[in-house]
Order: sequence, then structure tokens, then C-alpha cells
Amino acid sequence: MTSPRTNLERLFAPTSLAVVGASASPAKAGYQAMSALESFAGEVFAINPKAEAVLGRQAFPSLRALPRPVDLVLFAVPAASCVAAVREAIDTGCGSGLIVSGGFSESGPEGVEMEAELGRLCRQAGFRLLGPNTAGFLNTELSLTASFLPSAGLVPAGHVAVVAQSAGINLTVSFLLAKLGYGVSCAVGLGNAVDVGAADVLEFVANQPQTRAIALHLEGIRDGRRLYETLLRVTRKKPVVAFTVGKSDIGEFAHSHTGNLIGSYTLRQSALEQAGAVLVDSTEELAMAAAALSLRRLPAKLDPGIGVVTAQAGAGLAILDLLKSKGISVPAVTRATEQRIARLLPPMTYQKNPVDTGRPGPHFAEVVAALAEDDNIDAVITYALSEPAALRPAESLPAVQRAVAKPILFGTVGPREEVEATAAALTAEGFFVARSPEELARAACALARDAALRARVSRTPAHHAELLALHVPELPDEDSAKQLLASLGIAVPRRVVCSSRGAAHEALRHLQLPVVAKILAAEIAHKTEVGGVCLNIRDGAALDDALVRLDAIHVGAAPRRYLIEEMAPSGLELIVSATRDGSFGPTVMVGLGGIHAEVLRDTATRLAPLSLSSAHEMLEELRAFPLLNGWRGGPKLDHDAVARCILGLANLLCQEPIVQELEINPLRVYPSGVLALDALLIVKRDDST
Amino acid sequence: MTSPRTNLERLFAPTSLAVVGASASPAKAGYQAMSALESFAGEVFAINPKAEAVLGRQAFPSLRALPRPVDLVLFAVPAASCVAAVREAIDTGCGSGLIVSGGFSESGPEGVEMEAELGRLCRQAGFRLLGPNTAGFLNTELSLTASFLPSAGLVPAGHVAVVAQSAGINLTVSFLLAKLGYGVSCAVGLGNAVDVGAADVLEFVANQPQTRAIALHLEGIRDGRRLYETLLRVTRKKPVVAFTVGKSDIGEFAHSHTGNLIGSYTLRQSALEQAGAVLVDSTEELAMAAAALSLRRLPAKLDPGIGVVTAQAGAGLAILDLLKSKGISVPAVTRATEQRIARLLPPMTYQKNPVDTGRPGPHFAEVVAALAEDDNIDAVITYALSEPAALRPAESLPAVQRAVAKPILFGTVGPREEVEATAAALTAEGFFVARSPEELARAACALARDAALRARVSRTPAHHAELLALHVPELPDEDSAKQLLASLGIAVPRRVVCSSRGAAHEALRHLQLPVVAKILAAEIAHKTEVGGVCLNIRDGAALDDALVRLDAIHVGAAPRRYLIEEMAPSGLELIVSATRDGSFGPTVMVGLGGIHAEVLRDTATRLAPLSLSSAHEMLEELRAFPLLNGWRGGPKLDHDAVARCILGLANLLCQEPIVQELEINPLRVYPSGVLALDALLIVKRDDST
Repeated sequence: MTSPRTNLERLFAPTSLAVVGASASPAKAGYQAMSALESFAGEVFAINPKAEAVLGRQAFPSLRALPRPVDLVLFAVPAASCVAAVREAIDTGCGSGLIVSGGFSESGPEGVEMEAELGRLCRQAGFRLLGPNTAGFLNTELSLTASFLPSAGLVPAGHVAVVAQSAGINLTVSFLLAKLGYGVSCAVGLGNAVDVGAADVLEFVANQPQTRAIALHLEGIRDGRRLYETLLRVTRKKPVVAFTVGKSDIGEFAHSHTGNLIGSYTLRQSALEQAGAVLVDSTEELAMAAAALSLRRLPAKLDPGIGVVTAQAGAGLAILDLLKSKGISVPAVTRATEQRIARLLPPMTYQKNPVDTGRPGPHFAEVVAALAEDDNIDAVITYALSEPAALRPAESLPAVQRAVAKPILFGTVGPREEVEATAAALTAEGFFVARSPEELARAACALARDAALRARVSRTPAHHAELLALHVPELPDEDSAKQLLASLGIAVPRRVVCSSRGAAHEALRHLQLPVVAKILAAEIAHKTEVGGVCLNIRDGAALDDALVRLDAIHVGAAPRRYLIEEMAPSGLELIVSATRDGSFGPTVMVGLGGIHAEVLRDTATRLAPLSLSSAHEMLEELRAFPLLNGWRGGPKLDHDAVARCILGLANLLCQEPIVQELEINPLRVYPSGVLALDALLIVKRDDST
Repeated sequence: MTSPRTNLERLFAPTSLAVVGASASPAKAGYQAMSALESFAGEVFAINPKAEAVLGRQAFPSLRALPRPVDLVLFAVPAASCVAAVREAIDTGCGSGLIVSGGFSESGPEGVEMEAELGRLCRQAGFRLLGPNTAGFLNTELSLTASFLPSAGLVPAGHVAVVAQSAGINLTVSFLLAKLGYGVSCAVGLGNAVDVGAADVLEFVANQPQTRAIALHLEGIRDGRRLYETLLRVTRKKPVVAFTVGKSDIGEFAHSHTGNLIGSYTLRQSALEQAGAVLVDSTEELAMAAAALSLRRLPAKLDPGIGVVTAQAGAGLAILDLLKSKGISVPAVTRATEQRIARLLPPMTYQKNPVDTGRPGPHFAEVVAALAEDDNIDAVITYALSEPAALRPAESLPAVQRAVAKPILFGTVGPREEVEATAAALTAEGFFVARSPEELARAACALARDAALRARVSRTPAHHAELLALHVPELPDEDSAKQLLASLGIAVPRRVVCSSRGAAHEALRHLQLPVVAKILAAEIAHKTEVGGVCLNIRDGAALDDALVRLDAIHVGAAPRRYLIEEMAPSGLELIVSATRDGSFGPTVMVGLGGIHAEVLRDTATRLAPLSLSSAHEMLEELRAFPLLNGWRGGPKLDHDAVARCILGLANLLCQEPIVQELEINPLRVYPSGVLALDALLIVKRDDST
């Protein structure tokens, strides 16, 4: 290699290319690839042992025959030939490759093996490979269409990078951007992602000057932790909008597609958001939100305020309803702004926020300016039916935008020619133009969400708290799990481990009544299900009854032990747990306890480590949050103790790689403090994280 | 009146018109109205005492001066002049009117009074009035633009009727339809709806031959019951799609708009759906779904199956995920269909449902046909990126559609000119063409939902069950409320009403232990909050303790009474209640009991009367439904007893107009049977329903 550029840069910004399997036969991928490269200004070599030239380019019999190694090799050959071809590319010093063929891990055991071999080759050599099973990518800065789909070359250049698991979604989003009047800087379909994954492409486009926003599409995520950490860095520099499928059970079809297991949708969504990516629910919204964010980004702010100006109250209501249902603030304006607007509009119009101008008149733009200059407002969205006789936004709004630093977005509906003319003129001035009331509201949501997430991300600790002195038991039971909780600073009930009935009676005398008697055995994870928990014991007779029942439970060869424990006062019950996910690593979860977390799915999830304020946000996300917050005149419960409990579990998993899971169920929550009534700890003895 | 037509027909399909306030000054509404009427073929009279002619039409000094009464009068005069003008229209035999001016109930007490007077005039005379505070309506069959918005005349003619509370939404939806390539038959903005409401317009457009689907937009609903009953009739004839705002708190702005109080969003949504309207969440989706349904409607079917054919698996996944998350079935196809598809496609493609064709080839349309002809499939949606070289859907799909009676919908994304050409050609053939994967999926949802709701509606009883012999107490307490429940066939615990401590001890001897002792007083609705419920009484001493506590509660002048009641076995707790809503009349609600209904909002609502299967559907709608259905290997609970309990309350409210509310909280549910542990009955003594 003569260039100091990384092989990843050689892949996405090559100066020279070779097409293995280049063909003059229009039905072949090797023809499509060659013809798509016509606009590329770099060197292009055709590799075809049977031809002297392909589409006017000199053909070489093999990569070895080339005068010098190329940056990027496009492999337009069947799956079975790919391993050998990649090996040759590596041997000849080429930097990177792109495999379009399917027939790898998505198709069966043989494909899985070939794909694994490709992965090994890449890792050994540092060769960067896109695909297999992808249509390729575009880099419009280089007029480079490294794709086998004929229409890919028609995607206009612009400032949004599209990073998609699927080649089809890559082009779908690119053309949806074009429909909105925007274009792409780079557009990549990952396919099976044997080597180059979303994190790699994100690193590349985050440094690409012409990329101003990133649209990310994901199905399954293999190395979730790396993606998360990459996104944490990228979202500080550039806005990222993410769309991921899998809210329903679509596993079999998903696996057939790119060989990815779909994984937990909730965890994926939580991780993307925690890393600062704005989540959306469709390809349309992915394109729209990325386009809006590529124009202007709000400064980081936890709760930005949106101002709404509408010429039609009905549309204003639809906009307000959507914003509020997404938790976006539409704050009251200052008294001064109200007075300023009152001087501009007729008396019967609604002049708070939203401002309903009634029939749009000459003061429309001034009203927008008044709202935009208000201290409570961070961005203004404005909607009007197209009425060129009454309102010419392309003539009046640009001056307002130049005068205030805050984003102003415009939405309109009307006769096609009118709308297109207005949109073209405003887009040229750097405005986002929405084509419906809801699109306008959703664009505002994206701006506000990006600002709020960035403010949150800035509080996420880069590393977890200082190391604690912890003893992780190798064969944990409830008692040793609770000792671990105590050393994490999480309160547990007073209790005594007893190896005999006599010891249990002794314990009864020293503990506060009533007590609970439980079977204590590392083998029994779910004590209640085997009758291993006896509540409300107040005297020796009741204890004897309980011990008889516990003795009837089979516990294997270990000596029989009991846990005699003080019963806790009643209170709200939560479940708090930390789990080591195969893709994302340490995660924490909190939910309403008992049947609710599972049936009603009222839970909040984060990756660990996390900040105390993130733990508080988890509580606020629960539908059950009002129960923690002084429900029906009751006392406000101790949020902070719950949040610290979440952090304790998070820190444990970050610090101790052998801990797979620690679940507190239930965690009783009181006006002051919490109490972990049961704990289940799962450790993995061989230290593989 | 010489015509047998109703005044509602004279309003929306007039043969003659007069404009009061017709003006030659372009800034005035009376000018806009006159110029918008230029295309109208019927008679148009200008009313202006100061002019001889307006825009080439002879002007008359007043309605009285006209040669004969007109069908419709457009009032382009200020609010203050409207009452007198409407009176003149009535006196001269005109049939209907339209008031554009604002300044009525949305603007303050004086406006409220003027609006009330307009309402009285209309009711007395049978005059039908649209507005005030509306921009009017279009009837494209008559080339009639009865509107003051200049662009209204540019809405193309078509087969969707738009019925919108708001004039702005009326035009927004009309132009969104135009953008999709469709047009309107009739488009009406209701404004303040002093006389003509949504139900009236629905009646009109349901009978209008060129209307094939109806897009309905609502803010508040004043006479919900009438709207519901009208919709029940209309949705049998024509598909109705409904969009209503108010999921968030937008009350103040909403009231300022059309003077409507927004009411309960949940109830409104439930009622619209129960009447067979397909609910959507945006103006975009309102236009899109109405357009799709105007082309083809599925036969009524509870769970129609959607077939999905996609040329790009990534888009197919997004489509499948959306369909499944909306509860739409994407069923497996028969073995025969699988084999047929296997012969058409290369081996590595996914050939179940969805079918992923891989790169689209010559067999694409045959694959669509194979799926469409499968017995499990009721409609096929098909998505492909635009690739004219590989796929020409406009050439191949129409023949498939002609050969099978099931709807086939197509979605595509790509270079604009290609997509527009394909869409225009397929639209001309009667296809719905979606412009994104999600739009395609949402169109399928609308078709499936319409079919499912129609199947449900056909089971809704037109009248409630035969009359029961019921005694509704005038001053109900828990005991008399439970007597009423028992006479509705709802099981209640054994209990004794006691007027003395001695009687309570006597009761203790005859009931099964343990018992609960409660304060019994019509004045005390919430016994628990005043300490009026003592649980778990097993002996006389405990009963004495309880009675002392109950005697400490202040109950006013009435003699002190106790309710001694057998305690029920533990079980799942629901809340079931029936309420008489001011707009919608009798309604029933079921939810998970305790704190959950209120905090987690896990409830289902219906209007009464309803069928037993509707009551079952309510249970299935609850997120908590798994708890009723054999959760964690537990027994399946008695759905039918809960459903019959819901019906019992529904029938009570339908039969007894003085009952305002009856709430059972909790209703314990067992594997066999239910038990109403507490009941709160509210009656209204003057019999006004």
C-alpha cells in the first residue's frame, strides 16, 4: 500500500477499482457493475479471462495481471467462486472488496461455512469486505455507483448518508429522499455484513465532509456494543436517524434475508436511543427526518420548545396533538410575544402557541418571526394551505430565517404545481418543506428529539464508577446474592441462614416479627413455584409448620438450609434486573413488579454503564410512573433509591465479567429507601464475556 | 317547495343559489363566492342592495326580491347580520344556507347566543344550515364550489367524499387525495355545525352514487349517539375512514377553533370503530386509506389474510412488521401455492408468505397471481423498486387483477419520472399505487380493518335484549346495587344488612368465615377511603373491633347500618362499569382492576347495546388479556361470565334511563364464574336521558 488511507477509506472512497466477472452481456451483474461505473473518474479495470475489453475498458485475465493493486474489487461472480477471488485480492494487495452474490449464511450450512471463511480471510489480512448479499453502495462525491441495480445511478447527490442493512431499503430511502427534494452523500447496503458492519460505515460517513445527517436502517445487530459505542461518538458530530424492524415476530423471514437473527427489538431501540439516534418507524420517516436534520440541528437541550404557526386551525390541532402525544413541548410564549402577535392578527384568532393566523395575510411572516424570537421557543413550524394570492412564503420566510438563528420549517398542501413551486423555492433557500401537517410535526419531533438525546448523551458516563470491593459467589444462592446487593449499597432485609430447625427457632427469637422462612439452595431459582416460601410467621408453632413444608422439597445432596428473614412493610413492588446480552453486553431493566412487567410489558431498558439521570429517566418512561410519584395523594416514593439500585446493578455487570444476570424481584419501594426482597444471581464460571 | 327533495339535498345538491353579500370587490368573501360559482350550471343570484349586477350576474336587493326561492343561500355577511339574513331566507322559502363567518360560539358569550338563535330558527323551520365558521363545500358532480377559499375549485373530481369538522382539514385531505392521483365527489367542512352535523353529511354522501368511500375528520362530537347510529348504517354501504384529534390535551385550542369541547378521545375512537369506521392517525393516512378503499372493498370477514409479494426482502420485512404490529394476518399459503411459486422462482428466495422474488423477473406477475388465487389470501400487496428493465408492472399486473376478484395493490419507489409513469398507468387501471413500503402496508391494513369491522358490525344487536324485571333503587347503597346486579344475573357474595351490633353477630354465625364488615350508607361512595371496610373477620372479638371502627365514621342523620359479607376467594380483579355519556349515551368499560385501569389505562370501551362477541372482543383488547387466558400454566378464567357481566350492565343502562352509572370494582374472576365484590350505582331521579 502506497497510501496512508485505511482499507475502509479505500472501500468507500476508492481511487481505483476492478470488477471481477466483468461482462459484456447485459443480463449479467458484471455488465451492470461496469456500466454503473461509467461516471466514476478513478481507474476501472475489467477482470475477465475470456475478453480483451469490456465496455471499452481493457480486460485483464486476473487480479494478479493488473499493473498495480486496486483500492476496491467488485466481485460479480457466484458465491462458490468468492472465497478464492477474495484470497487473490488480498494476495495482490488490494484493499477492499464488495460481494453482491447471495447464497451465503442466509441460505444454509454450506453458505454459512463460506461466509465464515470470508470473515476469517478479512480479519487475518485487514481486508475490508462489503457484503456478501448486497447491491453495493454509492459515493456521490466521487460519482461512484458501486452497485448492480441499474437505477442506483439515478439517486441525486446531497448531504444525507444512508446506511442500510438491506440493499433494497438503501435504495428505497435514497429515492424517498430524492422525492422530498434531497439527495445522498453516501448510500450503503450492508447485506450479510461478514466484515464491514453498520459501525464501520458510520465511522466513515461521520468523517465525510458532505454528510450532514445519517439515515440508519438495521435488522439484527451482531456486535451491538460496538455499534452503540460508535453511535455515541457519531451522534455528537452528526445527527443520526434510525429505523429498525422487529417489533412483531418476523424472525424466520428476517433470517432468510441477511442471515441475521433479529434479537430483542426493545433492547435495540433502547440502545440506539441511548446512543443519541432519533428513532423512527418507517422508511418514509427515516428519509424525512434525516432530510430535516441535514439542514439544521438544534443545540443540545433536554426539552426544546416548538412554536407552531398555522393558517388553518384544524391542521394546527392535528399538529399540536401529534407533538404532544410524542412528548414534545409546545410552550406558552412570553407576554411580550403575545402582545406583539396581538398587534399583528385580528382579535378572534388564537394567539398563544399554537398561533392560528386565520386567513393568511401580510403579517404571516412577522408572526413567525415573533414566535421564533421568543426565548421559550427553539424552532418554529408553520403550516398553510397553498393560497398564492394571500401568502407567498418563499418570498417572506427566507428573510425571517436569516434574521433568527432558530430553524423555521414550513408545511403546505394544495394544487400540485403551486406546492411544487413553493417547495422548490424554499428548499433552495435551505428550508425543510413538509407536504402534510403531520409530516411537518414529525420533522419538528425529529429536531426536538435529536436535541434532547444529545443533551442526555452528554451525561452518560464514558466509564462506570470506581471499582467496588465485591465478592461474587461462584455458586450463588439468595443469601450470597443479597450479600452482593448489600455490598453494592442496596438494602436487603435482616435475615439468618440456618442449617437446622434449632437454628431457625433461634433466629426467630432475634428477628423482628413476622418473618418469612425460605428454602435456601443454589439449585432452586424459583422458590415460590416449589412452595419454598412461607410468609407471616409469628411464633414457634407456625415456624415448625413452615419447616415441615420446606423439608418436603427435594434439594439434592446438599445439606438442607433455611433462610429466616424479617418481612418487609408493604409497598410498591418493582423488578430491577441486569443482564449480559450476547450482542449489546451489560444491560439494565426496571419495570412494575409482579405479573406486570411480563404481561403489560411496562419496562424500561438501558445499556450499562449509565448515569444517575438516565436511571431516573427509566423510571419516568414507565407507564406506571405515577405510582412512584404521589399517586392519589399518597407519598412520593424514593426515586433516587431506585435509580441508585439500577446503577448498582449496572456497575456490577460492568465490573464483574462473570456475572450474567442479577435480578431483584421484587424491589419494595418506600417513601424513604428501598428493600430487595428476593435476588437471583447467575454467574458463568469460565470468565468469557 | 315544489320539489320533493329534502332540504339537506337542496343544500348539498342545489339547482339554484343566491349569494347574500355578493360583491365585485376581490378582497371580499362575497366576491370569492361569486367567482367560485362560475363553473356551476344551476341558477346563481347575487343579492346586493347597492349593485345592479355582480360578476355578470343580475343583482337583487334582497332574497324577497328574487323571482322564486332558491335551494341554497350563501351568506357572505358578518356574523352580526346572519340571524336576520337566515330568517329572511326561511321566510322566503329557501331550503338551506351556508354561513362562512366566524364570530359565533368559538368567540365568546355574544357569539354563543347568536349561534343558539340560528339553531332555533333552523329547527323550527326545517331549514338546513352549514356552518357557521366554515369555508363551505364542493360537489364535483355539479361542478359546484360553494366555498370562499380560492383554491377549492382546483380539487379534482373523484369518488371520495370528505366530511371534515374543519374547513382547513377538508381542503388538506382533498389535496392529499389529488396528490395520490384521486379526487373527491363531495367535500364538506362543518365548522361550528349549529345545524348540519357530520351525521347529516354522512347520510347525504352515503346515497350519492359517485361516492365510493368516505373520509371523516372530527374534533369534538356533540350528538355522538346519532353519529354512531348513522355510521352503523353508512359503513354497511360504503367504507368510512375516520381521523379524530384529541389523544393529547389540546382542549383550549380546540375549543377556540369550532367551539367544540373535545370530549373523551378513547370513547370517540371506540364508538367510531364499533360503528365500522376504519381509524387512522393522520390526514395523510385518511386520504390514502379512503383512496384505497374507494377502489375495492374486501367482503366482510373477521380476519382477512394478506399476501405479500416483494422484490426486495428488506422492504418486505418492513411491510410484514407493520402488518403484524397492527394485528393483520399474513397467513401461510397452501402447499399447492407453495409448489406453484417454487416453480416460478429461483431456489434461494423466500417462498412462503411474504414471497421474496429476489430480483424481479418475468414471473413476477405470475407469483402475484399464485398468491391471489390461494384460498387463505383475501388481498395481495406487492412491492418493487422501480426497475423498468426488469419489471413492468403496468403491463403485467392488470391481467392478473382481471383474472382474480381479490384486490391487488402495488407499491413502488424509484426515480420520479419512472414512478409517476407506472403509477399513472396502474391508477388508470383501477390499482392503488403506494409510494413507499409502509404506505402499501397501511393501505392493506385499511382494507383488512374495514372487512373485519364490517364482520363485527353485522353481529351488533340492533336492539338490546328483552326487558328484564328490574328494580332501580332511588337512593342506592352497596346492598341495593348488589341486588340489582343479582337481578341482572351477576353473582354477588352472600351478605346480610344489619342495623345493630347484635344483628351483625347473628349474621357472623350464619355466614361462611371469614367475613368482611362494611359501613352501609348511600352517602358514602368510597368506603375504603374513610376506613369503612374491615377484612378477614373470623370471630366475634374481631367483629367487635371492626364495628367500633365503623361506628367512628360520620354518616349523617340516617340510622347506622352495616353490611356483613362473606369474603370471596382470591382471584384476578377486573373493573367493569357502565356510564351514560353526555354525547354517546350508554357505554360500557372493562379493565384490569385496582390501580391498573387508571394508571396503566388498560381498558376497553364500547357503546351499549353490544353483542356477546363484542364483549369478548373487549377482553381480548386488554393488554392484560393473557392473565385471563391461562397465564403461566394457570387455569383459563371464565371469559364468558365476564362478557355476560358487561352485557348485563349494558342492558341495564339501555333499559333504565335513570341509571347514570354502575361500577363493579372489583369483579373477581375465577375459572368458573365471577363475583362482584363492590358495586357503586348512581341514579338521576328526574327522568331525563
